[in-house]
Amino acid sequence: MRAYDREDLQFQLWDVAGLGDLIAGSDLDRDAVNGILDTADQIGSDFFLPIGREIDENEPQFVDGRAVLPDVVKPAVDAFVRAGFIGAGFQPEHGGMGLPETVHQAAAFVLAASNVSLSGYGMLTVGAGRLIQSFGTDRQKRTYLEPMVEGRFFGTMCLSEPQAGSSLSDIATRAEPMEDGRYQIIGRKMWISAGAHELSENIVHLVLAKIPGGPPGVKGISLFIVPRLRDDGATNDVTLAGLNHKMGYRATTNCALNFGEAGGCIGELLGEPHNGLSYMFQMMNEARIGVGMGATALGQAGYQASLAYARDRPQGRAPTAKDPTAKQVAIIDHADVRRLLLAQKAAVEPALALAIMCATLVDRERAGDVKAKALLGLLTPVAKSWPSEFCLEANKHAIQVLGGAGYTRDYPVERYYRDNRLNPIHEGTHGIQGMDLLGRKVLIDGGAGFGALADRIRMDIAEGGEFDAPLEQALTRLEQVTRHLAAQVGAAPDRGLANATLYLDCFGHVIMGWMWLRITQAAQKCTARDGDSDFLRGKHQAARYYFARELPRTEGWSATLLGNDQTAFDMQADWF
Amino acid sequence: MRAYDREDLQFQLWDVAGLGDLIAGSDLDRDAVNGILDTADQIGSDFFLPIGREIDENEPQFVDGRAVLPDVVKPAVDAFVRAGFIGAGFQPEHGGMGLPETVHQAAAFVLAASNVSLSGYGMLTVGAGRLIQSFGTDRQKRTYLEPMVEGRFFGTMCLSEPQAGSSLSDIATRAEPMEDGRYQIIGRKMWISAGAHELSENIVHLVLAKIPGGPPGVKGISLFIVPRLRDDGATNDVTLAGLNHKMGYRATTNCALNFGEAGGCIGELLGEPHNGLSYMFQMMNEARIGVGMGATALGQAGYQASLAYARDRPQGRAPTAKDPTAKQVAIIDHADVRRLLLAQKAAVEPALALAIMCATLVDRERAGDVKAKALLGLLTPVAKSWPSEFCLEANKHAIQVLGGAGYTRDYPVERYYRDNRLNPIHEGTHGIQGMDLLGRKVLIDGGAGFGALADRIRMDIAEGGEFDAPLEQALTRLEQVTRHLAAQVGAAPDRGLANATLYLDCFGHVIMGWMWLRITQAAQKCTARDGDSDFLRGKHQAARYYFARELPRTEGWSATLLGNDQTAFDMQADWF
Repeated sequence: MRAYDREDLQFQLWDVAGLGDLIAGSDLDRDAVNGILDTADQIGSDFFLPIGREIDENEPQFVDGRAVLPDVVKPAVDAFVRAGFIGAGFQPEHGGMGLPETVHQAAAFVLAASNVSLSGYGMLTVGAGRLIQSFGTDRQKRTYLEPMVEGRFFGTMCLSEPQAGSSLSDIATRAEPMEDGRYQIIGRKMWISAGAHELSENIVHLVLAKIPGGPPGVKGISLFIVPRLRDDGATNDVTLAGLNHKMGYRATTNCALNFGEAGGCIGELLGEPHNGLSYMFQMMNEARIGVGMGATALGQAGYQASLAYARDRPQGRAPTAKDPTAKQVAIIDHADVRRLLLAQKAAVEPALALAIMCATLVDRERAGDVKAKALLGLLTPVAKSWPSEFCLEANKHAIQVLGGAGYTRDYPVERYYRDNRLNPIHEGTHGIQGMDLLGRKVLIDGGAGFGALADRIRMDIAEGGEFDAPLEQALTRLEQVTRHLAAQVGAAPDRGLANATLYLDCFGHVIMGWMWLRITQAAQKCTARDGDSDFLRGKHQAARYYFARELPRTEGWSATLLGNDQTAFDMQADWF
Repeated sequence: MRAYDREDLQFQLWDVAGLGDLIAGSDLDRDAVNGILDTADQIGSDFFLPIGREIDENEPQFVDGRAVLPDVVKPAVDAFVRAGFIGAGFQPEHGGMGLPETVHQAAAFVLAASNVSLSGYGMLTVGAGRLIQSFGTDRQKRTYLEPMVEGRFFGTMCLSEPQAGSSLSDIATRAEPMEDGRYQIIGRKMWISAGAHELSENIVHLVLAKIPGGPPGVKGISLFIVPRLRDDGATNDVTLAGLNHKMGYRATTNCALNFGEAGGCIGELLGEPHNGLSYMFQMMNEARIGVGMGATALGQAGYQASLAYARDRPQGRAPTAKDPTAKQVAIIDHADVRRLLLAQKAAVEPALALAIMCATLVDRERAGDVKAKALLGLLTPVAKSWPSEFCLEANKHAIQVLGGAGYTRDYPVERYYRDNRLNPIHEGTHGIQGMDLLGRKVLIDGGAGFGALADRIRMDIAEGGEFDAPLEQALTRLEQVTRHLAAQVGAAPDRGLANATLYLDCFGHVIMGWMWLRITQAAQKCTARDGDSDFLRGKHQAARYYFARELPRTEGWSATLLGNDQTAFDMQADWF
């Protein structure tokens, strides 16, 4: 069994996202893309899926300052590396395959559905590598990027500290200039995913630190390359202070790291001093899309597992069945089980559509499309947060389909639920995404980006289709809410931003309505081309579910937002 | 730190539920009740809370056919037994303390908040004991009930089988009559909580089985007492086939049991033949209220843990704060964190009010109040399901307050979330509760019970209070939806019941609005009596949150129900 639906992925790539147009004129054709996905599929099926339970039940151990993973992890990660997936999206000049981000992300989806915590190593390495590609010197690219593209070095992003989690202006790690232009790095970092392991020859940490004498707050943050093994042959003084014992996502080690405790940690500046946070946000934005893709993949994996169970498991009869000795029906024949399956389908499929759309926007941005960049910036908080919240909800439903069995570790659905619970937290919490959307993204250039998004959505809204009018209504309401909140934020930012998370959810639900519109329009084209099929009928029915059960939630949320509900803002700490 | 708010529990018992009136004229006074709660508190603090992590990380082991629990479990359970909590609600003639159910449940809440999976043993024993009290012979009461009341024997309920989980008509366990009036029991049971352990001298299984030749389906089910150790001195042939490896709730063993595989399992009929399911439903209904109380206790424990963290943890500054070197604020000062706390408070406090109300109805029913019985029947599916769904949601928010820390096992919130995920599944899934409510409870006597409930709610709705009008509106809408659905169910049951779960949620949200009305009315009386306080201000603000954010959800749900949305019913299995 696959942990995802290959037919749906093909449909999403070629029919919904129009990958054919994107790769037209490139070296890549449909067969080549399918070959890449086949490879991802095989690594997922052969290496990632089979060890899911084992690596969940045997979390990384802290042994003599080392992070020790179960033996089965390295062969799985090696297979992934050997297939070239870390370098897939990098240009051939650095040793990569030069694949479009859209294809790279499709493969990442397959691998994440097969095991999200194993796929974390690659995702982090790609993110770190891209930063060096963008801002590094030629020497830094040769020394660090190229071995990362080969998969010999892995990467990390080291932002948080014990006193500075979501508040990066408070980081205290210092970078003291040395005479040779390098820097002594001294500080403690927390929550570092893949911060310690023995899966690669070297680990390249990208570390946020402050050069003494620089400006206070975020304007004084610089970015440093701090490899575990330096190119001068020395081992850097980066020690593993401890591993976090997590609820899920266990094969990705999560570390507390001490830099330069014994004075022997040397790093190189990446790019210009005091510009580190803006660099890091490039990585962070890609990581956020990656988190959304991971959350979507987990939602998809739970959906597939619960769907297979629901088709197989006999239990009970229809409410009107009078004969208690009649054969039991498969539980998929119970309407409430179909509701639980539809709810999952209605969440995971548009989430995938958005993740793929974001990947196509990355490709278009790289090709110099300025509009794509603005649109991507606006969609990124949604692409990160919506699946983190609503594909987690889908995983809750997957457990429910299996009932008691779903609560045991004999089936993977409880693990998906635990794994996915991380996603609303890391790479900027759900609340932080809301602040990013309402406090920055929709306000930029007087709301020009948001206006462009609305125009873009309206390009897809035709007349007379089943879902066009309700989406237009929801979009119009979202515009009204956005104008209202933008004015509120302008007048009194603290109060105006108090409901940013609700706004984020409301915004996200409209975007997912748009995705369902695009999916059903693509399905209609397929029907016109190839005739109807159960697969295509399912798209329309799931869209109906979304428009009947989910999109209407935006009405209540909008009313709350337009009514300036200030219950949380006005609540006093002492009243709890 | 306590895992619950004692001040709130006192307020809920005396000011909201009117426990003073309930115990007026009995031997019990306020000091005595407080003494009982103090004892529960002490056992919770001294024995249950401190071992929470240890017994989660060391799940029961299957060793040579035995279920072996960590060593720390027995002293904790012994302390609970020694304090007399198992016998608390039984009459003195059987060795109990004769406490009202309301007081017993308040103590159960304290203990469940301290560790829900340890408190499971007592809950199951009480439920089984009550069945023997209701339907057993004098000999059975002496032989089984009295040692259970003493806490020497524990009890179980054995319903499910591999092919019969939610569908009890399909159970295959046989009870073959013996010449001496006893029965040979042969069959396999699944999901048996507390089915094997070494915490008590004996385990009294109450087993559903079919006497050959009886009617098919549920009408042929009888109930048997099957002790592990028989009173004829023999050990019954009940073998532990395996333990389930659960996501949470780990200290309550969950077992597959084989009865009479070697032909040596003898049971006694409890009550009349073929009447077993109706007997079991007495236990089941109490267990359902208990599940709701457990879900509420877990919600409360997460709320308290996240509240304490939010007050202590410094991080970030207000959006308008300009000075990055200014002291960081406690995260409770961020509006979005207060939202996450308010959302928890808004869920767990009315859930507790409903659980306590149900306990008072049990007391009134036992005193012969027929109206109380009908009202309790109608509220039971809500008391079970609403906290299972929405206090689980509260636990999700508790993790979010802690951020990355909440995702680690260093803090208890992720464990509460895992523990609570069981509650929408066991003792009748969320979907089964919906069918019970819409397919049976609201239809009984032409809707008389529902009418009485609406009258009862309107007794509390005064005029002009902040929450009266919106609750009246929501109730009127619920009446409309109920009439509409009752007609649909009458006309086409399979289709009419397809949205029963949504109806359950909608119904539950109105009930919780009623609970908030009662809580704020009680708070107003306290203010009039003792003056205002932060505690009482918090009640009003949390009610405002509920009425602003939660109750309006019933509008959308009602529209869906009144519109006869049939998306899930019409979905075909092949379209997924």
